[in-house]
Amino acid sequence: MPSGGETHIYSHLLAEKVRVTAAQVRRDLMTVGYTGTPAHGYDIRKLREQIEAFLFPKHGEQQKAAIAGIGNFGRALLKFFSGRRPSLKIVASFESDTEKLDRVICGCQCYSIEKAADIIREQGITVGIITVPDGESQYVADIFVEAGIRGIMNFARTPLRIPEDVYVEEIDLAMSMDRVAYFARQTVN
Amino acid sequence: MPSGGETHIYSHLLAEKVRVTAAQVRRDLMTVGYTGTPAHGYDIRKLREQIEAFLFPKHGEQQKAAIAGIGNFGRALLKFFSGRRPSLKIVASFESDTEKLDRVICGCQCYSIEKAADIIREQGITVGIITVPDGESQYVADIFVEAGIRGIMNFARTPLRIPEDVYVEEIDLAMSMDRVAYFARQTVN
Repeated sequence: MPSGGETHIYSHLLAEKVRVTAAQVRRDLMTVGYTGTPAHGYDIRKLREQIEAFLFPKHGEQQKAAIAGIGNFGRALLKFFSGRRPSLKIVASFESDTEKLDRVICGCQCYSIEKAADIIREQGITVGIITVPDGESQYVADIFVEAGIRGIMNFARTPLRIPEDVYVEEIDLAMSMDRVAYFARQTVN
Repeated sequence: MPSGGETHIYSHLLAEKVRVTAAQVRRDLMTVGYTGTPAHGYDIRKLREQIEAFLFPKHGEQQKAAIAGIGNFGRALLKFFSGRRPSLKIVASFESDTEKLDRVICGCQCYSIEKAADIIREQGITVGIITVPDGESQYVADIFVEAGIRGIMNFARTPLRIPEDVYVEEIDLAMSMDRVAYFARQTVN
């Protein structure tokens, strides 16, 4: 974030960058456990450390993730997320395609979806990525939740029925593309 | 949507499915240009036709799209979006990696990013997908917008500076994953 030699930054400048109000920035950063001073604003280095301590596991701790469905898109995600953060490791992939089973694909062991519950429990996996075909996503989500997964990234188009204490990000790329195409046509016509 | 032999559906049932109010459903569908009757609700077949006519180009019309950056993720997107809708076709990909240039990759001709402006203009491309490294995304977006692209799907992490009449969907998978991992940790601890 520091572009030159700045050591401090004011809340209103942070607010401009992310397009919210300065009051919102100050509230959010109080939640993180850091307050600046009116005279100098926030110490950038300390602020960054505090945000990282708030957002990520303690040094050395690791969260484990699994991905269900390793078609083209699943494999691209596996490569994208692998090694992005030392604190999060994708340790297993699950498939129903028997040709992919019991192999290491993109650096990750691939198991039958039928073994998923056992592997999630044994390895203490808490994060799940779902890239299976739409009709199978709820089946996979049920296994994930039952086995102990507490955060899910869902790329299938069917919204999941999930208990309230499990966090889900629904990422519907087809719908995003439909929106982009729709608005692109409006401004052209 | 019809699960059995239903021909009609009420706004409150549609509302339940998508978790909004029935009033919101009725307002939105009025925008689409279709109103049901209090006695029978919406005619499902007609409603679907009307929504499709509203959302998608007329039969036979086609919108053209281009993708910049065809690493693992770009190629997976290319495969994902190819042939999903006959009304939207990805006709070109752009790269700076010279090894990929002037080849057909995943069914799509790959050109140097330097030729992008000409190709977008010649082919009348209006939709752009950006999967280049973060530092290059604004450069690509500027070329896209200048050449006539009116809707952009941006997978780079840098929010784009784009004129207001161009529609952008920012899809930040790394941030989504950070959120999922964060909330998964909260409910476990």
